[in-house]
Amino acid sequence: MIEHRTVRVALLGAGSVGSQVARLLLEQGDELAARVGARLELVGISVRNPHGRRDVDLPAELFTTDAERLILGADIVVELMGGIEPARTLIALALESGADVVTANKALIATHGRELFSIAERVGAQLTYEAAVAGAIPILRPLRESLAGDRVERVMGIVNGTTNFILDRMHTRGDSLEEALRIATELGYAEADPTADIEAYDAQQKAAILASIAFHADVPVESVHREGITSITREQIQAAQDAGFVVKLLAICERLTTQAGVEGISARVYPALVSAQHPLAAVHGGNNAVFVEAAAAGPLMFYGAGAGGVQTASAVLGDLVSAARRYVVGGPGLGESKHSTAPSLDIGEITTRYQISLEVADRPGALAEITGLFAEHGVSVETLVQSAPDAAAGAASPHATLVIGTHSATERALAALALALADVSAVHAVTGVLRVEGQA
Amino acid sequence: MIEHRTVRVALLGAGSVGSQVARLLLEQGDELAARVGARLELVGISVRNPHGRRDVDLPAELFTTDAERLILGADIVVELMGGIEPARTLIALALESGADVVTANKALIATHGRELFSIAERVGAQLTYEAAVAGAIPILRPLRESLAGDRVERVMGIVNGTTNFILDRMHTRGDSLEEALRIATELGYAEADPTADIEAYDAQQKAAILASIAFHADVPVESVHREGITSITREQIQAAQDAGFVVKLLAICERLTTQAGVEGISARVYPALVSAQHPLAAVHGGNNAVFVEAAAAGPLMFYGAGAGGVQTASAVLGDLVSAARRYVVGGPGLGESKHSTAPSLDIGEITTRYQISLEVADRPGALAEITGLFAEHGVSVETLVQSAPDAAAGAASPHATLVIGTHSATERALAALALALADVSAVHAVTGVLRVEGQA
Repeated sequence: MIEHRTVRVALLGAGSVGSQVARLLLEQGDELAARVGARLELVGISVRNPHGRRDVDLPAELFTTDAERLILGADIVVELMGGIEPARTLIALALESGADVVTANKALIATHGRELFSIAERVGAQLTYEAAVAGAIPILRPLRESLAGDRVERVMGIVNGTTNFILDRMHTRGDSLEEALRIATELGYAEADPTADIEAYDAQQKAAILASIAFHADVPVESVHREGITSITREQIQAAQDAGFVVKLLAICERLTTQAGVEGISARVYPALVSAQHPLAAVHGGNNAVFVEAAAAGPLMFYGAGAGGVQTASAVLGDLVSAARRYVVGGPGLGESKHSTAPSLDIGEITTRYQISLEVADRPGALAEITGLFAEHGVSVETLVQSAPDAAAGAASPHATLVIGTHSATERALAALALALADVSAVHAVTGVLRVEGQA
Repeated sequence: MIEHRTVRVALLGAGSVGSQVARLLLEQGDELAARVGARLELVGISVRNPHGRRDVDLPAELFTTDAERLILGADIVVELMGGIEPARTLIALALESGADVVTANKALIATHGRELFSIAERVGAQLTYEAAVAGAIPILRPLRESLAGDRVERVMGIVNGTTNFILDRMHTRGDSLEEALRIATELGYAEADPTADIEAYDAQQKAAILASIAFHADVPVESVHREGITSITREQIQAAQDAGFVVKLLAICERLTTQAGVEGISARVYPALVSAQHPLAAVHGGNNAVFVEAAAAGPLMFYGAGAGGVQTASAVLGDLVSAARRYVVGGPGLGESKHSTAPSLDIGEITTRYQISLEVADRPGALAEITGLFAEHGVSVETLVQSAPDAAAGAASPHATLVIGTHSATERALAALALALADVSAVHAVTGVLRVEGQA
């Protein structure tokens, strides 16, 4: 089948994802043409430096520094530059010109999505971004379309490969955080400046996007509670393992009704304990997985590569083929139906469970004092493990390690309790506070 | 938001899935209206007996026995009767009338899909069937849309919950096949006549559908090689476990180039050994999972409930919401782009690995005779484990158990070898032949 119609595709950016998208477009021309019903013609690639080094050999004549001109001569624009500007201005220009836009830019969608979706809606263009969350894994389209007739209650995902690689190494090799980070950097899992990953800014943006789509709501990135993995110690990992848990950095988005009866949405990112039996516990290395609980479908899991140039390019091309089919045959865009007015809830409103590790004085009354504080804060103790005083510490200051698992309580009560515990004279140190997720 | 437009939905069948679809349509009217931009009005449910028992209480006035009249007054028809007729005739009638059709009918799609898709294409209607494979798990839409720009190389799935439940019990409880089947029947995992499940006719139909969509090809159900689980013994399960494997009934669809250089598609269903480390090994009970390998995306896995009325209803409603959006806003259907002309390959053409268990005479030369036969058939031995002669068997007939794992070879060579082994005088019995999947 020879297709005579063409769809003009402009590519913005030729980094690790962009160069793979360009390569696949050029190599798979016939197959893509058969699927779309028209040839996808790569009309150009805008870059800052046309002579820069690329991951992939691409024809030199494709490169241009004039992004605006490229955009205005295209039917579909694929933005893979990353960052807020000039991506934001260029996407707006493309949409205003009537072109559909495909992007992998999670930072931009999480922070300026609303403004871009409203341009798209006004002009009847479409802005899709499957690659922005969980790389190659199809998750946004299934949430938006396959589960369109269901009610998503909860999304819990490992959406950052770098931190999963680090935590996985701490578990499987006994590395310290610093060692694991160094290896991650050497192997290319972590960037030179790993802040966005290990402080969970990356996961926070993805959580905002996941919550927006899952709950048909506007979830601003600032409303997503964020804690990174920088305070996780080898000792916490060991203690978690001993108790049958694995530490994972989770992005959690759920519908909740607060104790005051307010229905809202909680989106949050933090390292948490997950039962070793939970499907998410088996997600190793740099992989991603998203666990979805829907009212009718029950639990679903989507698993695969969360990053990587060629893997992410697969998701970009999926969106591109959809946009191209729409260009050829017509039809509505994948609109952002944000009809929910459920408010974003503060982290204090959610209920969760804590596992608190303490070093305590090994003297009569210490335990009573501590458990009394739990009762005062309305938090009930589910498990309590006291391990023998550390012989090496000497008789002068006998102390024991206490690991207390709580029943569900509001985050507010638990946080206040954790603070108060640090002030108890019998408590030498609060050595770890982690939430427990994935259990009723 | 009050929607004044309505989309008229006719439901054919009120069994376990149909009654849940009706319930969710009635209960979630407002939320669905917000997502679709129009109310979904359930105009009626056609059943054989309007006074029959239902899983769910539904208004009596919805029921009718006049399916044709119901269809002709509907904008979208949801077929959940199952079976070939009258479903086939009624779906054809609905499509001819211009209505989009949603179905969960795998038997019908696998055997008469071609004829129905061609009606849909001719009249510009759409026929979708996400619920036909892997129940609640979104798999067909991700294959068709999210991976539209990628090249799917292989799909390997656990797509039948009944047999997975049975094999899982044989592994975890040591049940015999008969015991496990009895429990499955008691718990409602297996039907009174379990033939379709345990003989893998159900999985065969699903494999045909998966292969068709993954490879954009026509894959007739008859071309799918099928072996059920009825010959799996407790001893085979135990031996698999000892060797680090799990026995799973797999539906495998892959692109292949035969030794003669023919590019084709192989679709097949059989019980096979999967490494205990493979993600599919962790799929327990009645769950389903589909493992997809795509050229760019790499390995992906989709996991969830493979059956159940309300779970399957989720997938049906996802298709229904898509069809309703299309009804409201217009646009092209999800066409069946079957542009590939790759032939379906005979099972003899594929390469695979076998694990063969033999009871052999424990006498000099026996091993040489057996391994000689491997060489003759061009099959190379990868692992060979001989266990001590069974003391209880007495001295008259000393025999040993031999478990031989092969390297990759064509199925044709392996099958001929397995047959030939039975004729060797030193071989008392071929006690097990299983393929090994999920490894290079």
